[in-house]
Amino acid sequence: MSRQIDASNELMNPAISTSHSHAIDIRVYYEDTDAGGVVFYANYLKFMERGRTEWLRALGVDQFDMARDLKRCFMVTELDVKYQKPARLDDLLCVDSRITRLGRASINFDQKIFRQTELLVQSAIQICCVDTVNMRPAALPSLVSKKLQAITQD
Amino acid sequence: MSRQIDASNELMNPAISTSHSHAIDIRVYYEDTDAGGVVFYANYLKFMERGRTEWLRALGVDQFDMARDLKRCFMVTELDVKYQKPARLDDLLCVDSRITRLGRASINFDQKIFRQTELLVQSAIQICCVDTVNMRPAALPSLVSKKLQAITQD
Amino acid sequence: MSRQIDASNELMNPAISTSHSHAIDIRVYYEDTDAGGVVFYANYLKFMERGRTEWLRALGVDQFDMARDLKRCFMVTELDVKYQKPARLDDLLCVDSRITRLGRASINFDQKIFRQTELLVQSAIQICCVDTVNMRPAALPSLVSKKLQAITQD
Amino acid sequence: MSRQIDASNELMNPAISTSHSHAIDIRVYYEDTDAGGVVFYANYLKFMERGRTEWLRALGVDQFDMARDLKRCFMVTELDVKYQKPARLDDLLCVDSRITRLGRASINFDQKIFRQTELLVQSAIQICCVDTVNMRPAALPSLVSKKLQAITQD
Repeated sequence: MSRQIDASNELMNPAISTSHSHAIDIRVYYEDTDAGGVVFYANYLKFMERGRTEWLRALGVDQFDMARDLKRCFMVTELDVKYQKPARLDDLLCVDSRITRLGRASINFDQKIFRQTELLVQSAIQICCVDTVNMRPAALPSLVSKKLQAITQD
Repeated sequence: MSRQIDASNELMNPAISTSHSHAIDIRVYYEDTDAGGVVFYANYLKFMERGRTEWLRALGVDQFDMARDLKRCFMVTELDVKYQKPARLDDLLCVDSRITRLGRASINFDQKIFRQTELLVQSAIQICCVDTVNMRPAALPSLVSKKLQAITQD
Repeated sequence: MSRQIDASNELMNPAISTSHSHAIDIRVYYEDTDAGGVVFYANYLKFMERGRTEWLRALGVDQFDMARDLKRCFMVTELDVKYQKPARLDDLLCVDSRITRLGRASINFDQKIFRQTELLVQSAIQICCVDTVNMRPAALPSLVSKKLQAITQD
Repeated sequence: MSRQIDASNELMNPAISTSHSHAIDIRVYYEDTDAGGVVFYANYLKFMERGRTEWLRALGVDQFDMARDLKRCFMVTELDVKYQKPARLDDLLCVDSRITRLGRASINFDQKIFRQTELLVQSAIQICCVDTVNMRPAALPSLVSKKLQAITQD
């Protein structure tokens, strides 16, 4: 399936995104790297957060609105990351996200970062929905819950 | 040249980029914001660096290769920034870049960050080409120099 | 209660801080550097913000409390930075801050970053007090204003 | 030469550091927080890296020198993090580090972040020593290995 790519920008790759998974391309800039010449280990978590956020946005969920209108936001509660190969300046990465479990107040993701077909980083991440006022766990807003059920249910 | 846009991603806006200027769209993520609820002031400089880098890349200049093969990199030597309005989570910003002066070893840019038509931040930035070994100023690689002359000369 | 000090950590240097200026030491970590092997240009602004914050804290002003109780926070409105020499991993830097003008709703600082006696970066920065609700300029809280007048007035 | 200490800065707490563990205090600044009003989840990894680095420095291991002279650096290969409670702007945190396993080319740490006695984040992190030229695993420099054996062996 051919596609013209403007590799200079972050593009959602529809060839890879399906109803069960989501993929975005992310370019590595100087800000992401460290003096070791590679991406600083914490910065891969930024890429993963962008991946989760763009998936939610593609489903019609805007986290700014969710916080303002519904007083709900997401907090990461657990993560497990394996770093296999480093990414470097100017690399074009792909963040691939899948939902492995959908709970009443939490979502589990598997996220992988690739450079073309090479797997660089893989992770299992749990995010929890919390009330922005008291920071306690709270059920996912029903709209969000329905949208995620629709894509995870089959 | 028509292109379908997925506004959820960072896209170069061909309607705005000209031979004399360059524009990229940048999405604001949690990583960019601070507890004030807006983009942290230093992070706009990351957006500007992405803008300059993508312009160079669009011209065929890859900074990783430039550092490895020609032992040259760019360092910011001066910047002057005026913050007019804050950007917020989920905003889609546009970084507009223009070259105001092309020297033997330095380039001056004017860069502006917009949210649609609203000007949020404006800056004048000087970057200098340096030798990666001794970190001293060095002439721009002739390939880079020629490409920039071509776009600034008329 | 005496405590043994390890100079490898961030210490306020009372030998340098005076009633008219303030200094803190800051260590450069991997997170601050980029693939150029030096501190990423935006990250010096983090160091400067730490310097301003620690000065305010030393004067008894806690910005978290100020935002929560008085609905006031500071926004940077203007900055002018000259980068003279790069800082590197493991460097111990000193951020020196001075107030050059105290307005009704704004404060102007001169901030310099040194590595021992070597000047690396210098800046003029204006911060403005804003109402956290509408993000509009607002007079400095009178407590803050009085404390800053006391140290700038003579 | 006596120096007055300001607890608002990052201090190693000798009451907590022992030969088997290490602790540093870290202040939360605006740069560390996000629009959720708490520390951005990736930024706790910066705090942990500072903890590991300061421990190595306290043992006489300087990573900049190690990279330049011995062509060895550390890469994180695995991490497992549990986020229990969020840290906020102006919090004074303590990063507590322990070595749980010392391999030929790798070190396993348990790291915890506290706000006073409250446990906020806990992690198990594996770092691997790599050759800076080819980025392949390499034995720990013998000096580093000996120093770590001395503190883990009893």
